[in-house]
Amino acid sequence: MGFLSSTWVSIRVLMASHAKARHSFRTEHEFVHWLQAHTTGKTRGVRAGIGDDAALVRIPPRHDVILKADLSVEGVHFSSRIHPPRAVGHRALARSLSDIAAMGGTPRFALVSLALSKPTTRAWIEQFYRGLLDLAARFDVAVVGGDTAFTPGRTLIDAMVVGEVPSGQAILRSGAKPGDRIFVSGRLGLSALGLAMLDRESSHRGPRLAEFAPAVRAHLFPEPCCALGRYLSRSRLASAAIDLSDGLSTDLHHLCEASGVGARIFEDSLPLVDSAGLSRSRRLRLALDGGEDYQLLFTVPLAKTSRIPSRFAGASISAIGEIRKSREVVLVRSDGKTSVLEPRGYDHFSRTYSR
Amino acid sequence: MGFLSSTWVSIRVLMASHAKARHSFRTEHEFVHWLQAHTTGKTRGVRAGIGDDAALVRIPPRHDVILKADLSVEGVHFSSRIHPPRAVGHRALARSLSDIAAMGGTPRFALVSLALSKPTTRAWIEQFYRGLLDLAARFDVAVVGGDTAFTPGRTLIDAMVVGEVPSGQAILRSGAKPGDRIFVSGRLGLSALGLAMLDRESSHRGPRLAEFAPAVRAHLFPEPCCALGRYLSRSRLASAAIDLSDGLSTDLHHLCEASGVGARIFEDSLPLVDSAGLSRSRRLRLALDGGEDYQLLFTVPLAKTSRIPSRFAGASISAIGEIRKSREVVLVRSDGKTSVLEPRGYDHFSRTYSR
Repeated sequence: MGFLSSTWVSIRVLMASHAKARHSFRTEHEFVHWLQAHTTGKTRGVRAGIGDDAALVRIPPRHDVILKADLSVEGVHFSSRIHPPRAVGHRALARSLSDIAAMGGTPRFALVSLALSKPTTRAWIEQFYRGLLDLAARFDVAVVGGDTAFTPGRTLIDAMVVGEVPSGQAILRSGAKPGDRIFVSGRLGLSALGLAMLDRESSHRGPRLAEFAPAVRAHLFPEPCCALGRYLSRSRLASAAIDLSDGLSTDLHHLCEASGVGARIFEDSLPLVDSAGLSRSRRLRLALDGGEDYQLLFTVPLAKTSRIPSRFAGASISAIGEIRKSREVVLVRSDGKTSVLEPRGYDHFSRTYSR
Repeated sequence: MGFLSSTWVSIRVLMASHAKARHSFRTEHEFVHWLQAHTTGKTRGVRAGIGDDAALVRIPPRHDVILKADLSVEGVHFSSRIHPPRAVGHRALARSLSDIAAMGGTPRFALVSLALSKPTTRAWIEQFYRGLLDLAARFDVAVVGGDTAFTPGRTLIDAMVVGEVPSGQAILRSGAKPGDRIFVSGRLGLSALGLAMLDRESSHRGPRLAEFAPAVRAHLFPEPCCALGRYLSRSRLASAAIDLSDGLSTDLHHLCEASGVGARIFEDSLPLVDSAGLSRSRRLRLALDGGEDYQLLFTVPLAKTSRIPSRFAGASISAIGEIRKSREVVLVRSDGKTSVLEPRGYDHFSRTYSR
């Protein structure tokens, strides 16, 4: 029984076509064996049935199941000009892991569907899976299936993650109450800064930026906050949570909308990126509207705020404001003036790779 | 909380662009409300959390979880020239339901990721979801999430279905033993015949074929055999099963490969499509190599074969051959001659919409 054996048909078509190109897998078996070598061994909870019509897994008793799927489309969510394939694989899975983290869950299993544009090379496919499987291995997530096909269009990935959470302990977006304090993990805008650096670099055809530069690394290889999410869930400290995928200004609106509340946040409390020659207003815009930080935004009842650590798993935890009954979301500026905070995260994002 | 609220960003982008076109949803709220109106009410096992970072569902105790994802790519798995959008939606979900059926499971939840090519109209999206949600409703499957995005390429759907099966009762591909008898449900090749009729019709620009013509209907709106799969699982009659998605010649190879066995099937026992002016050899090729019938192929220990009904849920059940120790798969012709059965199903399929 092979990994993804129910998709051998499409893989066979894939390989027959690829065999004509350089740098391709010569046979479907070569591809399947390569995948098998990288996916076996992660079998906790995986029962007989992998490589069957479908995957068969087990969730422990008294646990709820968390389900999330995220599309990554070439030209929309990533660009071959900016994102190396290892980062495409990492980011495709990280998006769903981050949503599981925001609910306080533990990611367990993943299905990865991959529609490949025809010119895709073997090297791209290998590096893509390497990025995805390295992240999966670190979070003890078993990649148990998915589908593979060629597409006459752009390369596209749909990563679906199944997580588990003890029944009744999931943190929802909808639990925030007036008076709760608002916290975020990490520095905000780091990923958007990294993207801007990569974008500028690729336009100028300059030397490749070091992947380990903090902002570039935050963009290419974001780290889902699963440990923090679990801590907030198990300790019952958070009343609501959401992951910062679209940008603070947008995601705070989502949380407030789901909870039927408003919020007030303070400019001076936001964990901006380090100056690095950037103006304060630029750093503020990055923090408010830069997407893909995959940090957690969460609310905590006032009486429990003293139990929130100032750092967790290497990242800072910052109190940035409070939930209010009034439905509007406002920003209190450094000069004390207040302005309505518009959800602008998606604008930044949709502009990035628009054609 | 809205359905798919974690994808509002992409839906917002979608709608902003669509607003310029005729026949489009005017706002994202119009789209989300339309979806909500068609997805609420199916809440068995769905806990708080829909429209949250992810969906939160419950699987009953002492059940295993079945996971399956299937890509449907425009130009590969469907063609806008041949498949009306309602059929695209139905077929996208039916593929995964059929895999759950083959394992003896009950489909429960679905995530539907939809990457839309830019010219897609509101009417197409509505009809697509209508086809998908009608099928989901009939099988009591709750569509609990997914992702939506625009793609610069072709429209693509990834339907992921979560099923449940009492622990230890899943039917695998790998359980067939020498001496077991081989059965199939329904008539084989009906879908491929329907596809050929639709293909010919669309090339000649003739009048639209009636959707209710049996072969056309079998192709456009295949019915997953969930009741039969559950019956075979609960009664512990089947030693192995697979759904016929790629064609008998290919899927029988998959089952034999997974079980480490061979098989012998008899031409005269195959449930061919009714003649309808087709030669016997054409009908035989349709049965062997025509894909997408979504009938079940299953094996039964000899001692239990008397308990297999000749009809189940309106479809015939035919004994077509036997499992053998020798690893080859052979066809016994009407004249008694034996030939090796090559897996040709995928050829038929990959040719169909290749560009």
